[in-house]
This record gives sequence, structure tokens and C-alpha cells, in this order.
Amino acid sequence: MLTQFKSGDRAACARIISKIENDSSDAAELFSAVYADVGKAHRIGITGPPGAGKSTIVEKLAIRFRKEGKTVAIIAVDPTSPFSGGAILGDRIRMSSLFCDPDVFIRSMATRGSLGGLATKTKEVCDLLDAFGKDVILIETIGVGQAELDVAQTAQTTLIVLVPESGDGIQAMKAGLMEIGDIFVVNKSDRDGADRMMGEIEMMLEMRPENKDWHARVIKTVAIEDIGINTLCRYIQEHHAFLEEHDLLTMHREENIRSTIVALVESRYSQALWNETGIQELLQSLIAEVLSGRKSPTFASQEIWEHWLNHHQQHS
Amino acid sequence: MLTQFKSGDRAACARIISKIENDSSDAAELFSAVYADVGKAHRIGITGPPGAGKSTIVEKLAIRFRKEGKTVAIIAVDPTSPFSGGAILGDRIRMSSLFCDPDVFIRSMATRGSLGGLATKTKEVCDLLDAFGKDVILIETIGVGQAELDVAQTAQTTLIVLVPESGDGIQAMKAGLMEIGDIFVVNKSDRDGADRMMGEIEMMLEMRPENKDWHARVIKTVAIEDIGINTLCRYIQEHHAFLEEHDLLTMHREENIRSTIVALVESRYSQALWNETGIQELLQSLIAEVLSGRKSPTFASQEIWEHWLNHHQQHS
Repeated sequence: MLTQFKSGDRAACARIISKIENDSSDAAELFSAVYADVGKAHRIGITGPPGAGKSTIVEKLAIRFRKEGKTVAIIAVDPTSPFSGGAILGDRIRMSSLFCDPDVFIRSMATRGSLGGLATKTKEVCDLLDAFGKDVILIETIGVGQAELDVAQTAQTTLIVLVPESGDGIQAMKAGLMEIGDIFVVNKSDRDGADRMMGEIEMMLEMRPENKDWHARVIKTVAIEDIGINTLCRYIQEHHAFLEEHDLLTMHREENIRSTIVALVESRYSQALWNETGIQELLQSLIAEVLSGRKSPTFASQEIWEHWLNHHQQHS
Repeated sequence: MLTQFKSGDRAACARIISKIENDSSDAAELFSAVYADVGKAHRIGITGPPGAGKSTIVEKLAIRFRKEGKTVAIIAVDPTSPFSGGAILGDRIRMSSLFCDPDVFIRSMATRGSLGGLATKTKEVCDLLDAFGKDVILIETIGVGQAELDVAQTAQTTLIVLVPESGDGIQAMKAGLMEIGDIFVVNKSDRDGADRMMGEIEMMLEMRPENKDWHARVIKTVAIEDIGINTLCRYIQEHHAFLEEHDLLTMHREENIRSTIVALVESRYSQALWNETGIQELLQSLIAEVLSGRKSPTFASQEIWEHWLNHHQQHS
């Protein structure tokens, strides 16, 4: 599978991604074998409220980058419903024009319960696609929650896509979007209120603390009609040049590596602890004690911790 | 402080909440001392996209519950911007009519970085307000991300507030909202499209797997004019009665206790691990090795894990 991956085989790449997503036992080894090739792709996060047209922006950007001869990967991060376990890919279908291009790799990722892990998994998939040789990786997230912001921030350049009726600026600010955007896109700007929205964003940006000399760009687009996409593309490239110039790409990679290692260690720890002999039974009996009011969760957690430490020492 | 808390002193309650929020060293002890009184309040989560009018719904519900002689607590969970560290409380101001009522306790909670912890912290604050004797706890979240859904799900009854223009149902479904709602509110229903929205929600609900015999209610409101609030209140009480009847309140409490204990244990070992002697230096040198392509994050995490195990054994 590795040889195929290294020779640019898309199916092999897709299979390794699935292994990463499913925490397959050989994922780590496969991943390690390609890790030295990571570090060339430009990772662009696209976030914003549902219905803002993020998928269309992503599609148009992908087409634009392809015209410049760049290879592209698209990762669409969908929250999975806790019940059905499946992601809804309605507007992915619109991307079909890109499906036939062998130099565009499209992948949907679902959250599958553990949300904390999503940003980590997305990073790993980005790393893999980076090693696979993609020049540009577009990461689209759905929703405006913190988890989505975390995913968006695994990117080097973050686009916030809004629409004229995204509500007053304060609502956008609340969602923490204003703080993380490098480029703000007012999409569907042929609708009423686009200029007001632009003005509000610019006002907010003035209140934002200086971000290492990068002045966030604000741009109007009508993505579906391809209006503004060329300029948006130029802004993205300007931001990349800025990051390079200020050595921020390396810093960004270091931060990514740090949080990846930390997450891996903690997930390992968590597994070891909850699989320890007797821990589940202890947890169950402690829940009953807390429920009856005889113990607080804090003291219950102390007991588990002590059990783990003792058990661990006996076996070492 | 405990004596004051138990005698119903709001300032004492607020101080203990702050201690919980700030992981103050005596928080656990204070919390344990009141934990036996937890388990009586009805916890109602209110979620939905920004601008749907959640704060107004919360305000009107609070007024309604007060008229029935119930004491009320309101927790507004705001995402904190990662830069400014402060929450924007714009529309909290609208609640001022409730600020003077000594039997309404209003509290804003910010996420302060660690998002995984927010649902846990919210639960703890709910427990405290429950022990404080509040009959009804309204938990309002902002945004429609997974973290917000997690917070909403710490409630026993979950309201999803939408507006006619919330976009096609598929967008709402994507955000996972359709799966967790016990009651759906189409607010601002004097606007165009309210009936279409109602129809879409009902259609989606038909596709939803049966949820232990509870048929989710769908209701139109114009909260600002108090239209539909009485019926909404009745639905909420019907849901509570349903939970009681099917012994689901106890199940819900058990689940809450379980996840609280798990989170406490994990936060504890995370602290112990990263404060271990030599770990930070090891992490730093491993980051450099990964950056240069000599090692993968997976193998780096294994080294940290082994260092921790060895170190731990030597000291035991």
C-alpha cells in the first residue's frame, strides 16, 4: 500500500485515510513511513455559519488553483449525528465537476462521537495529503462551534465565509469567528446588506488586537457566479507569502506537531487507564454512591485515580 | 461560605460558581459538601443558530415559570474568543427585567480555552444551582457546534430554537440539531416561511429513530410578543412528566455522574503527566525531531508514554 501511495495512487491514499480515521492498528506505522514528506502543502480552512455558501467557495477555489497547475485536496468535515452515525453530504454533490479530475482529492470526514479528536484526525489526514504531494488542502467545516474553530485553526490560512444576512456583527463575534479569520468573505453579496456587513466586519477588525502585521482582508463574492474568486485567490496567496516571510509556517507546523503528540499521548493514557483491571467495576459502584448522595464526583474521581496508581505500581 | 450557601445566599452561590469555573483549590471540597442536595431541578437546554431569539425565549420562559411560583436559574454559555478572553453579553441586557427578582439567578459562562471541559463545568454549575434549590435551570448555548450540542445535552429537556429563514432543513440536520431536540421551536413565526419550516421539521422527525416513545413537539412562537410561550411551557412540563414516568431522570443523572467522574479523572492524569519531571524538555526535543522528519508524531508519543511509565515506576 505504501509503494502505491508513494507512486501517487489515489485509492491507496484513500485507504490509508480510512485507517487513520478508524484508528486501525497499522495506521501509525503507515503514517510514520510517509511523515518525512510532510510540510509543503498550503492548508486553507474555510468556516462560517451553515448556508453561507462554503462548499461553493471551496469548489470555485479548487477550480482556480487547478487552473494555476496546483494539485488540490478537499476535506469536508461534517458533524455526525450522535444517533445515525452518518454524515449528510447534500451539497458535496455540487462538487461533481471536480470529481473527474485525478489531481483533485475529495474526502468527507465525520466526527464519530469523540469531538476532541476531530481536530487531531483532520491534522493527520492533512499531513497524509501533504505527504501525498497535494499543493493546496482546502478544509471546509460546518457550523460555527468551538470544535469547528479548532479544526479551522489547524489550517495556515483561515477564511470566514459570511452572508449579508448573517445577523448583526455581534452575533458573528460571539461565535469567535472574528478572532481567527485571516480573510473574510461576504458571499452572496448581490443580496441586500452586503455593504453594511462589510462595514461591520471592518469595524470589528479595527477592535481586534494586531495580528503580527497581517491586516485581515475583507472581500465580497458571489461564488456561484464566480465573482470575486480571483481576488480571493490572490489574497490567499498574499497571506501565504506573508506567513513565509515571517517564518510563521514553521511556527505553525511546530504547534501542530506539539498538539498532535499531546493528543496521541493522552488518548493512549486514557485507553490504558479505562482498560485497567477492575476500573470499570469501581466506576460503576462509585456512580451508585454518588447517585445516592454518599459521595461527590470529585472524591469518586480521586478513588479511581488512586486505584490506578496502586494497581500500576503493583504491576511494575 | 457554605453556611451562607445553604441559607440561600446568592452571593455565596455566585462565589462558589466562580471557584468551580476557575478550578480553585477548595472548589472540590465545597462542591462535595452540597452534592447530597443535587437531583431535584429540571434542567432545560436551549440551543439553535445565532439570531434565532434564544435569549428572548429563555427570558419569557423564566417569567412564566416564576408566575407558577418556581425558582429559576439561567446559565448562558458563551464561547470565549481565544484572544480577548472575554464573553460578549450583548443580549443578556435584554433580560434586565429578571435581574431584580431574587428568585432568578443569572450566570454567564465562558469557554476559556479548553472546550472539552465546558460541558463538564456547565454540569457542575447546574449541580450547584440544583443543590442551591432552584426548581428550573435554563441553559442557553450559543452557536450550533458539537461543543454546544454537548452542553445542551447535559440538560434533561432540549429545546431547539429555529427561525423561518434558518435555511433548508438539511442545513439544520447537518448541525446535528434534529437528533437531539425534544421540543422544536420555530420562533419569529410571524415571518414568511414559518409553516414551511414547521413542515420540514416534522418531516425530518418522521425519519428520526423512535426516541423511547417521546414524540418531539414542534411549536410556533413569537417570543418577543409572548405568543406561544404558554404552550411551550406546557410541552416542557409534559416532557418532564414523560421522563419521570419512564425513570429516565435517574438514567440521565447516572450518565451525568459517569461523564463528570471520567472528565475529572482525565483532567487529573493529564496534569500529572505533563507536570512530570523532564516531560516538557522531552516533548520539546521530540517536536524538533518530528519537524526535521526524523520521527513521526506517533513514535514521539510512544517515547513520552514510555518515559512516563519508567519515571513513574522508579518513584513508586
